[in-house]
Amino acid sequence: MREILSVGIVAPQSAHFSEPLTLKSGATLPAWDLVYETYGTLDAEKSNAILVCHALSGTHHVAGRHHESDTHAGWWDNMIGPGKPLDTNKYFVIGVNNLGGCHGSTGPSSTNPETGKPWGSNFPLVTVEDWVKTQAQLASKLGIHSLAAVVGGSLGGMQALQWTLTYPDRVRNALVIAAAPNLTAQNMAFNEVARQAIITDPEFHNGDYYEHGVVPRRGLRIARMLGHITYLSDDAMGAKFGRKLRSGEIKYSFDVEFEMESYLRYQGDKFAGEFDANTYLRMTRALDYYDPATAFDGNLSAALAQARANFLVISFTSDWRFSPARSREIVKALLDNERDVTYAELTAAHGHDAFLMEDPHYHAIVRAYLENAA
Amino acid sequence: MREILSVGIVAPQSAHFSEPLTLKSGATLPAWDLVYETYGTLDAEKSNAILVCHALSGTHHVAGRHHESDTHAGWWDNMIGPGKPLDTNKYFVIGVNNLGGCHGSTGPSSTNPETGKPWGSNFPLVTVEDWVKTQAQLASKLGIHSLAAVVGGSLGGMQALQWTLTYPDRVRNALVIAAAPNLTAQNMAFNEVARQAIITDPEFHNGDYYEHGVVPRRGLRIARMLGHITYLSDDAMGAKFGRKLRSGEIKYSFDVEFEMESYLRYQGDKFAGEFDANTYLRMTRALDYYDPATAFDGNLSAALAQARANFLVISFTSDWRFSPARSREIVKALLDNERDVTYAELTAAHGHDAFLMEDPHYHAIVRAYLENAA
Repeated sequence: MREILSVGIVAPQSAHFSEPLTLKSGATLPAWDLVYETYGTLDAEKSNAILVCHALSGTHHVAGRHHESDTHAGWWDNMIGPGKPLDTNKYFVIGVNNLGGCHGSTGPSSTNPETGKPWGSNFPLVTVEDWVKTQAQLASKLGIHSLAAVVGGSLGGMQALQWTLTYPDRVRNALVIAAAPNLTAQNMAFNEVARQAIITDPEFHNGDYYEHGVVPRRGLRIARMLGHITYLSDDAMGAKFGRKLRSGEIKYSFDVEFEMESYLRYQGDKFAGEFDANTYLRMTRALDYYDPATAFDGNLSAALAQARANFLVISFTSDWRFSPARSREIVKALLDNERDVTYAELTAAHGHDAFLMEDPHYHAIVRAYLENAA
Repeated sequence: MREILSVGIVAPQSAHFSEPLTLKSGATLPAWDLVYETYGTLDAEKSNAILVCHALSGTHHVAGRHHESDTHAGWWDNMIGPGKPLDTNKYFVIGVNNLGGCHGSTGPSSTNPETGKPWGSNFPLVTVEDWVKTQAQLASKLGIHSLAAVVGGSLGGMQALQWTLTYPDRVRNALVIAAAPNLTAQNMAFNEVARQAIITDPEFHNGDYYEHGVVPRRGLRIARMLGHITYLSDDAMGAKFGRKLRSGEIKYSFDVEFEMESYLRYQGDKFAGEFDANTYLRMTRALDYYDPATAFDGNLSAALAQARANFLVISFTSDWRFSPARSREIVKALLDNERDVTYAELTAAHGHDAFLMEDPHYHAIVRAYLENAA
């Protein structure tokens, strides 16, 4: 059934931008590339495009498979495809790897044309606002002025929200899922611990590890293990692992004793072998920095007054990273501006990860919203 | 006012035990020492002793100061002293550094008499049950058979609970504060990340870093930073730091940007310079392993059937490490056994750390309980 509904075999594309880009930090990139994928067909009016923004470790590969024997579909394959909530029979869906990423778009591991070496520590810090700006340039390059929707979960939801502020006349609907209007001190604290694990790894070499032929694998592994704790709820970890011992009895050692430890180590090792540490540092800083209310003395309602889009905001009860209360702050600020907002607070056991899960109620809400979207 | 109510200048003492000790793991220590402090006067019947058990990073230095110019009082000085809730005018209070510690009791940094070198990786893993057993030997050495009370917060509360199970006829009251009957998968996951940060530090040397003249400072620092997140509530971090920038503006760097980062780094650095990593590993494993219900097919009520003490159980609303729900599990199991239980669920903003804070309501409850204790 899944295969029938899939977008099938997809191939990434690359867009080159030769004009220098000035970032929010004031730094400039001389030229840059974005890697992206598209699913479905752009209509004659170029009015049916949906942009999907990724979260911390996501990529442009949102749906489908790269080849016949590819065992891993895109990260939101359950959401996107023919007949799925983001229906590619109706919509032209775009997935893009954000600037600063490590999956093909220009980032710290890319070659700095001025030196011929990887950017490394010299790659500038990027922000949610920078991503939105570069995504808009990609849309323009594809001939798209107005997006039917921008959709994202977590950090991706922050991008969807920012789209409505930076380009109020270019986005008709924003789907802001499992997100927050900024990070809490606790959210930022977890990011800081993750970054310090990477930065103090002796193989980090101040961010220029590429030249040393090493990667700060230990630090990135710790960062990812910690991340996984915050993606799952306490209850979800309890249901999945509980206090289950791996071998049935305590060994009195620091090797894996509990099943949960095996899971965390596996996730950490896998990620540390795939992801770029400099990208991880920058993604977490983009999360830290995002706070549209800052320019309005902390008044979120004032900040969101620029928005013209209609909104679907979704939160999940067991999400303690970006709790429903944070989504309600967004909803409240939008209602203060008399925006058209649909809000769903969904009962879910999976914590923050719920936004990636295939849940009938969740999917039905996204489907219904988009079926009725302008 | 504080000085008047203080126990004043105190000095640690040491007790040597020359009989070999067999631990729960099956490992044996040939001989061992416990460092302890006492406050108040043991009465003629030796019936007024209260044992205070410490948590993960605590010590025997619970109250008073070590010399006139000592700027730091013991870690629970607000609770213990003349006229304080644990009133040293009435009670003889004992603080002890647990076996495996790094403040004077025999632990991984102590000399292994068989090799003449620090125990290091060869120091066995210790458990809550082992600590209770060794604390009981210390009490016996002091001529004390029956303790008026055993008191502890967090991991210390687990020891207080275990006293009532191992020595039901030797403890009349157990004060189990901000504790849990075992760790959840999420609790254990945080411990695992902390341990992995230490163990993968290149200067850990498989636990035998003493011989290399180094310490796994980076790993211990990360472990402590992470610990601090779990000791404070999200709200408490918000109230204390919020999103306050250190310099008033974003610098676009990985140096300290937010006040909270400065706090975490300071706490991490300080701890890494003082505490022994091998002890940290063992303390977290003792937490992981503790689960009195295991031997009773997970039935906590059956496990606590051995208890004869009266109980005061206290939890704090904002404690997400050991939430009130976990304390209620203990209360429920005790009530199933018709034990005499007083339970207080206190409104507190400080998260898990609330058990260390000077709160009038909290202190009044402890005081009232002990004034009426048998």
